[in-house]
Amino acid sequence: MTVPRRPATMADVAARAQVALSTVSRALNGRPGVSPAQAERIRAVARELHYAVSPAASGLVTGRSGAVGVLLPHIDQWFHSTALAGLEDALRGSGLDVLLYRAESAADRAAFFQSLPFRRRVDALVVIAVSLTAEESSALSGHGVPVVAVSSRIPGAPFVGIDDGAGAAGAVRHLTNLGHRRIAVIRSTNATGSFGSASTSRFAGFRQAMEERKLPVPPEYVVSAPWGMEGGSEAMAALLSSADIPTAVFTESDEVAIGALRTLRRSNLVAGRDISVMGFDNHSMADLMDLSTVAQPVREQGRIGGQMALEAMETGSVEQPETVLPTRLIVRGTTAAPGAE
Amino acid sequence: MTVPRRPATMADVAARAQVALSTVSRALNGRPGVSPAQAERIRAVARELHYAVSPAASGLVTGRSGAVGVLLPHIDQWFHSTALAGLEDALRGSGLDVLLYRAESAADRAAFFQSLPFRRRVDALVVIAVSLTAEESSALSGHGVPVVAVSSRIPGAPFVGIDDGAGAAGAVRHLTNLGHRRIAVIRSTNATGSFGSASTSRFAGFRQAMEERKLPVPPEYVVSAPWGMEGGSEAMAALLSSADIPTAVFTESDEVAIGALRTLRRSNLVAGRDISVMGFDNHSMADLMDLSTVAQPVREQGRIGGQMALEAMETGSVEQPETVLPTRLIVRGTTAAPGAE
Repeated sequence: MTVPRRPATMADVAARAQVALSTVSRALNGRPGVSPAQAERIRAVARELHYAVSPAASGLVTGRSGAVGVLLPHIDQWFHSTALAGLEDALRGSGLDVLLYRAESAADRAAFFQSLPFRRRVDALVVIAVSLTAEESSALSGHGVPVVAVSSRIPGAPFVGIDDGAGAAGAVRHLTNLGHRRIAVIRSTNATGSFGSASTSRFAGFRQAMEERKLPVPPEYVVSAPWGMEGGSEAMAALLSSADIPTAVFTESDEVAIGALRTLRRSNLVAGRDISVMGFDNHSMADLMDLSTVAQPVREQGRIGGQMALEAMETGSVEQPETVLPTRLIVRGTTAAPGAE
Repeated sequence: MTVPRRPATMADVAARAQVALSTVSRALNGRPGVSPAQAERIRAVARELHYAVSPAASGLVTGRSGAVGVLLPHIDQWFHSTALAGLEDALRGSGLDVLLYRAESAADRAAFFQSLPFRRRVDALVVIAVSLTAEESSALSGHGVPVVAVSSRIPGAPFVGIDDGAGAAGAVRHLTNLGHRRIAVIRSTNATGSFGSASTSRFAGFRQAMEERKLPVPPEYVVSAPWGMEGGSEAMAALLSSADIPTAVFTESDEVAIGALRTLRRSNLVAGRDISVMGFDNHSMADLMDLSTVAQPVREQGRIGGQMALEAMETGSVEQPETVLPTRLIVRGTTAAPGAE
């Protein structure tokens, strides 16, 4: 195999593959008009010649950036990094780059929606678990960049996620079926101090399951704390100091539940025996903590979000614009029938 | 404030800011020749006009891509996502995009080093926790793209990380000082089935501390398993079936230690009381698991790696090309003096 000493050009690829320059361009940019077999052969020749597309030059010709943007509130939390890995699975081999936009704080968010940095830089934007205001939502549209929503809905955008309300209601029914009557909930606020759409839906599911059984939800059984282990720990401490301690606690995420378990352990209470604790998500640590939870397919959500973005870029629309993946109740050791009173 | 109805151009920004076009270009591309105050004023005007740089056009003029590439083996593991968040901290506000390259499997890696997709797409490449072969290492250089190494060294590249050997030796000295004599180690292999540089250095630190006390390391006390909780769980099971069970186990990461703790619990053994277990990293779950460990500043490593990349892009070199951050022994409940034999 001979490799030109200067960087290979698209013309080198065309000559070696014995096809027209325009055919190479279509094949390497993933555009129609070239058969899959021919496209694969051309990509193989390009690899052989170490041909690197110059995105700047290529972008000016095709009007494409060759990249998919991802907006997410956190990079280093389990849900978000797992969904991001799934998105990368879907884009792998497409030749598209994945470009990160993190909007963690309220200031980050304001800056993102003021400058909309993704315009002209990406061919599609996937928004993972960001609950948008109506204003933010409308700011995203009208730039010719398709938007895909993962986990939190965006009006008018294709969506992949779960039915948070149904998942939560099922988890709480598990508790009522075990015989629990005094069931508390720990709600989680996000970095902007408000409840995201997943939190709101899960809380609605909790209320629904309680109403079905005509069980009261006194105000002291609804505790809100910042999302995370610390918040869960503190919220459980608050519940342990209520006048009438609940026999079960539903949390909106496993990290919160794990924090609650820490408070129980420090109080020499045994989860399951003394107080039941229910998580949500099936975090990678849930099995180890023997935590009952509602499993949701996170990596799969990222993967489908990536596929939707590719489809929107290719065809201008997404044929199946709503994908709701099933959740699954996992009963482990932290939930059990309440003891004798 | 009036905003042009067509997308704002650089000329609009220059007119509003009352400066030359070239000054706007320099300010928005972060190039020298414009004072920080003036650059800030120009960026404010650009924001006010919702001016979006077209990276394709801008890249052809400046020869820059406006992006930093990140190569990492995993997106959804604690160490990697935490370091990535730190990197994003450092690049935040620079106007540079973060572009992800994941090389998880051996095949991913081969594809990355064959096609070197970062060429012409990024202005710098940060490699997080990838132990390169000599061949891979030399493949990265010579493309005019500065490379920065985080956590695993790359010959000739600026490096930020920790002293893995010293951290491990300190942890093992803690065990020998408690009186342990029969100390086993669980080594971790990566996706390609080999030991990465961090693993190799931590094992060397273990051996050094054992030699200092002239303690034997019989072959059955060196167990290797794939990195992760499952591997740790299985390795601990193997150690529990050795002829002469060790009184302490040093692991090369907290995930592995947490897996080992699960096996102990399932065997009705109490970590600390029956067998001491030492982790490494101070994972976000280590505190909750009451796991003794060696803390390393992970987010800080990503942040410094990002700063090094910026410096290399701006000046062509990195003034302090080696930053070794301190580790810190954290003693929790899983390590204690061995019981009477």
